[in-house]
Amino acid sequence: MDYAKESLKMHYDLKGKIEVVSRAKVDSKDALSLAYTPGVAQPCLEIQKDVNKSYDLTRRWNTVAVVTDGTAVLGLGDIGPEAGMPVMEGKCVLFKEFGGVDAIPLCVRSKDVDEIVKTVSLLAGSFGGINLEDISAPRCFEIEKKLKECCDIPIFHDDQHGTAVITLAGVINALKLVGKKLDEVKIVTSGAGAAGIAIIKLLMSMGLKNVIMTDRKGAIYEGREGLNPIKEEMAKITNFNKEKGTLAEVIKGADIFIGVSAPGTLTQDMVRTMAKDPIIFACANPVPEIFPDEAKAAGAAVVSTGRSDYPNQVNNVLCFPGLFRGVLDARASDVNDEMKVAAAYAIAGLVSDEELTAEYILPAAFDPRVKDAVAKAVAEAARKSGVARI
Amino acid sequence: MDYAKESLKMHYDLKGKIEVVSRAKVDSKDALSLAYTPGVAQPCLEIQKDVNKSYDLTRRWNTVAVVTDGTAVLGLGDIGPEAGMPVMEGKCVLFKEFGGVDAIPLCVRSKDVDEIVKTVSLLAGSFGGINLEDISAPRCFEIEKKLKECCDIPIFHDDQHGTAVITLAGVINALKLVGKKLDEVKIVTSGAGAAGIAIIKLLMSMGLKNVIMTDRKGAIYEGREGLNPIKEEMAKITNFNKEKGTLAEVIKGADIFIGVSAPGTLTQDMVRTMAKDPIIFACANPVPEIFPDEAKAAGAAVVSTGRSDYPNQVNNVLCFPGLFRGVLDARASDVNDEMKVAAAYAIAGLVSDEELTAEYILPAAFDPRVKDAVAKAVAEAARKSGVARI
Repeated sequence: MDYAKESLKMHYDLKGKIEVVSRAKVDSKDALSLAYTPGVAQPCLEIQKDVNKSYDLTRRWNTVAVVTDGTAVLGLGDIGPEAGMPVMEGKCVLFKEFGGVDAIPLCVRSKDVDEIVKTVSLLAGSFGGINLEDISAPRCFEIEKKLKECCDIPIFHDDQHGTAVITLAGVINALKLVGKKLDEVKIVTSGAGAAGIAIIKLLMSMGLKNVIMTDRKGAIYEGREGLNPIKEEMAKITNFNKEKGTLAEVIKGADIFIGVSAPGTLTQDMVRTMAKDPIIFACANPVPEIFPDEAKAAGAAVVSTGRSDYPNQVNNVLCFPGLFRGVLDARASDVNDEMKVAAAYAIAGLVSDEELTAEYILPAAFDPRVKDAVAKAVAEAARKSGVARI
Repeated sequence: MDYAKESLKMHYDLKGKIEVVSRAKVDSKDALSLAYTPGVAQPCLEIQKDVNKSYDLTRRWNTVAVVTDGTAVLGLGDIGPEAGMPVMEGKCVLFKEFGGVDAIPLCVRSKDVDEIVKTVSLLAGSFGGINLEDISAPRCFEIEKKLKECCDIPIFHDDQHGTAVITLAGVINALKLVGKKLDEVKIVTSGAGAAGIAIIKLLMSMGLKNVIMTDRKGAIYEGREGLNPIKEEMAKITNFNKEKGTLAEVIKGADIFIGVSAPGTLTQDMVRTMAKDPIIFACANPVPEIFPDEAKAAGAAVVSTGRSDYPNQVNNVLCFPGLFRGVLDARASDVNDEMKVAAAYAIAGLVSDEELTAEYILPAAFDPRVKDAVAKAVAEAARKSGVARI
């Protein structure tokens, strides 16, 4: 199928992938008087007395804003807020269809961190959570950090943390398959953007120690010139031998490669220099850092990509709908590491030990068990870690 | 029916009066690839090339934000943004059920004019229009004015202009009934808030000359101390004899009373001092400035209220759903006086000369003809006045 052509036609035909519908009847004077004036004054007054009642008396309990500034839309880059809307509407569709969440797309006409933070924070009373989407690095880190500080509702940047959760799930199962442990392996990344950094931070919170991140200029190490603040921060906690050099040089002996970068970055020769049973996450989309058949021919034990036409797809739809379902069910005030790790284990756990093979380390996007498993695990983790409010 | 009690129960049961639903299928890999990645890149790129395509390829063409700061919710006053949400959701229900418009409630956590303006203006790319709601005067005037200046989408403050449109419709038919002309009558108001001022401005744009506005301190005249800027502006263009005194004093000889103020403001004695065949709009809610039976007993020819249990209800649902339907259908960049007047004539015109009586100057809220009549008239007026974009 010619997805570009067919998708464009579908978008012209549909004229919008989401819509707002009424859950209340207004087909009689009495019905109108209950849903609107004068009756509606009573729920208003209840919320005025106790603002938490907004979760009981309005749709806030189930509503998430999907917020972008249009600066890093898919692989298209900075295409502007209006042009980002088809993706945001698509995200909202997935939120509803995979998680039962009402999601509202908000495309912000600003690239200024503080303006975006202010805009979103002033709207926090209308939502149960905020999903940040397709905001360019390193601005996305600052926006997320500041929003977490000033908002009383959970903030989640899916490009970072959704990808990190699913990668962790894949790593858990891949390591099980090859009989290695996270705190003993060496991981090398290609890409140090939003996803790459979030993945490594989450893996490190689970025990990973030996990791070298690389970007277009090669290995990131403490003291390298021209690092932005977030890469500087990562340089301090990774690459403890301060290895320098290209990806080809630092990947030698690595157990796991995690690519969130550009097509063709990883060669068969590089795979051949990795440790025994190398594990490859080649998530550049649509063209991965290395194609699975090439990686396997060079000795890879497990290969995961971002594509649905190969096994082991790292697909964010495995995480964010169920994660937010759990967040909203627990009325969580935050999405913390405990909740992300719980989501990863829930996803990994859907592949039983008997089913686990090199071709099946992650459940399929359409696996109907995913939502409930992730939601339950996330809500439990929220309660255990003290951020749940119900 | 005990509306307060029943409405509260209904709100607890429904847990939100609106929800977001998907219009796109995502039940297969192919469907997902069209609604989301990779296919969705193509509509994004089309919008990047021509931002107007956002009206064709996303739901923007049919989507309006309902924006409040919670400072003047119903008659409840400043109850806060979260507490305003039940009203905003109700408004969104009416937008959909009466106008086919997708409306999204946004309750802003700020009372600062510039913060609210900035927040809304940064989101303008996500919507086809903005409906301001329940924002206190005189801030609402400034917010509307500034938004109209900085936004490329139509801005409409329903509490002002919706009420003005329907009042104008009622005035048109009431004057026809008593055989008087707008440019010859004397009108006295009680109330000089958002609605009162918008009503008088719209009536004056239609030829009204002789008008005195009153507030709690009596007649508003040029030079009265302590007037806020908007009342000062009104003082300059109304009350050309600079009459001073109470409502009881200045209402003498008036043809029309327009009340958007407080219960019981108008007495039978005052009505008796008005001109022949006095016309009364007593729109304070739920208790009007004077009850219809009292007004009639004192000689009123026509009485209109805000209540659904009396004839001639001034109900905003007669205007905003059809008006925005027309605005969106014409992709109007503004809601100007021509469009408001067209809406008023469309509403008034639904009552034929043969049907017109003192008990029937305005169509009923549930009259199924209203939406299309208003939408058609508004879209035509938008095209004639040069603000339509399709």
